[in-house]
Amino acid sequence: MLKPKTVKGAPREYLDKLFDIKKNFQRFKQKNDIFNRSIWDDKVKAKDLFVSYDITNFVPKKSKGFDQWDYAFRNASWHLTDVVGDRNFDVDGRVEGFTDYYSLRSGGAATKVELSSPEETTKRIKLAAKIFGAGMAGVCEVDDRWIYSENYNRKTKESRSLTLPKSYRYAILLIVPMDYDLSKTYPSAVSGATTGVGYSTGLTCATTLAQFITNLGYNATASLNDTGLNIPMAIQAGLGEYGRHGLLITPKFGPNIRIAKVFTDLPLSPDQPIEFGVKKFCDSCKLCSDNCPVKAIPSGAPAATPPNFSSHSGIKKWTVNAEKCFKFWVGMNTDCAICIRVCPYNKDYSKWWHRWGILFANSPFRKILLWIDKQWGFGTRKAPDEWWKEGKAAVAEEESQ
Amino acid sequence: MLKPKTVKGAPREYLDKLFDIKKNFQRFKQKNDIFNRSIWDDKVKAKDLFVSYDITNFVPKKSKGFDQWDYAFRNASWHLTDVVGDRNFDVDGRVEGFTDYYSLRSGGAATKVELSSPEETTKRIKLAAKIFGAGMAGVCEVDDRWIYSENYNRKTKESRSLTLPKSYRYAILLIVPMDYDLSKTYPSAVSGATTGVGYSTGLTCATTLAQFITNLGYNATASLNDTGLNIPMAIQAGLGEYGRHGLLITPKFGPNIRIAKVFTDLPLSPDQPIEFGVKKFCDSCKLCSDNCPVKAIPSGAPAATPPNFSSHSGIKKWTVNAEKCFKFWVGMNTDCAICIRVCPYNKDYSKWWHRWGILFANSPFRKILLWIDKQWGFGTRKAPDEWWKEGKAAVAEEESQ
Repeated sequence: MLKPKTVKGAPREYLDKLFDIKKNFQRFKQKNDIFNRSIWDDKVKAKDLFVSYDITNFVPKKSKGFDQWDYAFRNASWHLTDVVGDRNFDVDGRVEGFTDYYSLRSGGAATKVELSSPEETTKRIKLAAKIFGAGMAGVCEVDDRWIYSENYNRKTKESRSLTLPKSYRYAILLIVPMDYDLSKTYPSAVSGATTGVGYSTGLTCATTLAQFITNLGYNATASLNDTGLNIPMAIQAGLGEYGRHGLLITPKFGPNIRIAKVFTDLPLSPDQPIEFGVKKFCDSCKLCSDNCPVKAIPSGAPAATPPNFSSHSGIKKWTVNAEKCFKFWVGMNTDCAICIRVCPYNKDYSKWWHRWGILFANSPFRKILLWIDKQWGFGTRKAPDEWWKEGKAAVAEEESQ
Repeated sequence: MLKPKTVKGAPREYLDKLFDIKKNFQRFKQKNDIFNRSIWDDKVKAKDLFVSYDITNFVPKKSKGFDQWDYAFRNASWHLTDVVGDRNFDVDGRVEGFTDYYSLRSGGAATKVELSSPEETTKRIKLAAKIFGAGMAGVCEVDDRWIYSENYNRKTKESRSLTLPKSYRYAILLIVPMDYDLSKTYPSAVSGATTGVGYSTGLTCATTLAQFITNLGYNATASLNDTGLNIPMAIQAGLGEYGRHGLLITPKFGPNIRIAKVFTDLPLSPDQPIEFGVKKFCDSCKLCSDNCPVKAIPSGAPAATPPNFSSHSGIKKWTVNAEKCFKFWVGMNTDCAICIRVCPYNKDYSKWWHRWGILFANSPFRKILLWIDKQWGFGTRKAPDEWWKEGKAAVAEEESQ
């Protein structure tokens, strides 16, 4: 009864109903996402933020959580993503993983591997995804509504129409857990390291999995934040539910995750969406909304009209005000994610009592759980220097064993 | 009493004594390692092996463990290592991670970070190493004896004298655990995936850590199998002991690991070597030697004369016959590592009874332990299709929870 419930019926129709998708719904233009707007829209500024990612031209403050140790650590965590991601920027303006899919190294096999059934193939693919670094993996049929209508090029500042090959019938969604202890220090430069490591793992997992499928003789394309919207696809692939903060909440890692994906023509067996009480919980919990310093997260009911054009319209959901949100964290020169930190679903699920707790969130006891969460101060920020201190103590303790 | 014992005295002198290093000892020339010999020495052939790593030009067999699924999986696991590793090959013949160190993306900070003590710095660095993917990390002072005297260029087939900057006083050794279940299927193409994933993690961890140190205003160079010998440095850094099979045996993951390293001028506090009974255990256990199909692993006592010039001379140790070993696994078109599989130290240390077992290996009960290991068939090969089957079942079970 307390386990995630698999919903019945066609996943596409489940999302229609979940989000009450209107007739005026249109596919999203990548140039309108808040990161790309910072390139062409004077209203959205992020230059200082981007500069801060290379410490050569950036002098950190002295304050704890934002000093040279913290920025050195955060920036390093993006090293691999940067090395692989913008290797082609000077050639054609590709920013792989952010505006463009990843190029693979090998063209793969000329001969298609022998398959038994889509169910069997899917299990093998999910097994491989775990070995390659995913914490969870799910499959959905590609729904064009979540694919960007246009691709944006940050070098030429031009948009181009984007269409996935029709043969790409499936998407494999990959969940990469982030570090729980680091997430408790949001917002800080040091916490940005778990974002960076999450991206690095997502990139590695998705490209390796796509190369695997290509080696099986099928086509596959690895993608991170580019090409389409991860969250609706992940919901469709049965990996979690949608939260008030506009993030995916997974039953295994809460909202403290990153998402990557692989599009493919390999015949797979799609998953069914799941429900484990998130909608009802978020209805009564407003912790993310209350704790957002700039009130970028709605405290009311889902709505079909977004705060600005950096979010979809014609789809009834809680929508974060991307302009307010972005402006706040750009001003800190590091990512915020207070909404992840304070979310009652953000717990250390390696502990059995939290694995139980998440089950009670899907029961009439949810209000008691929420009360406990507030009383015990689970969402309280951990001081970044405390994180370094506790981490060092853990290293010392482990060595003494 | 049963815990790893930290040895006293200067680590360099400990290694002198451990390996009884002779006066005729000379630094190793990279061109003589068995992989590089396959480029210039007609006696050592590996062309078919290298070809097998891109499935475009390689047709796998039909046999289980060596079919298209297995090679597709193994080859994909090397994707990242290849993408990052040979990006400069066409320009200057660099094969980063194999013959050359990794280039970093940013020059780092112009200003050096404030440091309190080398001990504190070391703890922070080890904490960062864990976040970046290492299972264990240790520090040693750089001992020139383990640095190659010459670097080999696979494109020009030339060697060049190699000297580390004198300022690189320390090396940080990084242990990357491999997948236990996959290691049970050695030798097979499918097991090669854990080698590939191990390299990929090692590359990510070492480059990210080196970028971190560079961002702190110090110099650091990330290295995998290039530049110097990982095993003696890892012993010096207190990460494990030397086994009969010529591999490092760690107290946390046994021999089922990969090693990466970072050289740096950041002031650190070196670790002391450890002992937990490996030498004595290997003295009585000959499982690796007995199970090597080509008898490449010595069954006798350590010796100062190597079987051929692909190993050091003037250092008394168990030395694998690299020519025999390589010829065998090249013939299979995938890595062998039966010696890892059958090693009684290769256990699933997530189970408490194996964590206890390793402690008894360092006691007079070691012969009983060895008897149990043989009786229970711990070293028996898992059939590769069984690995796929069990893995798929685990995926299905996890999803049903």
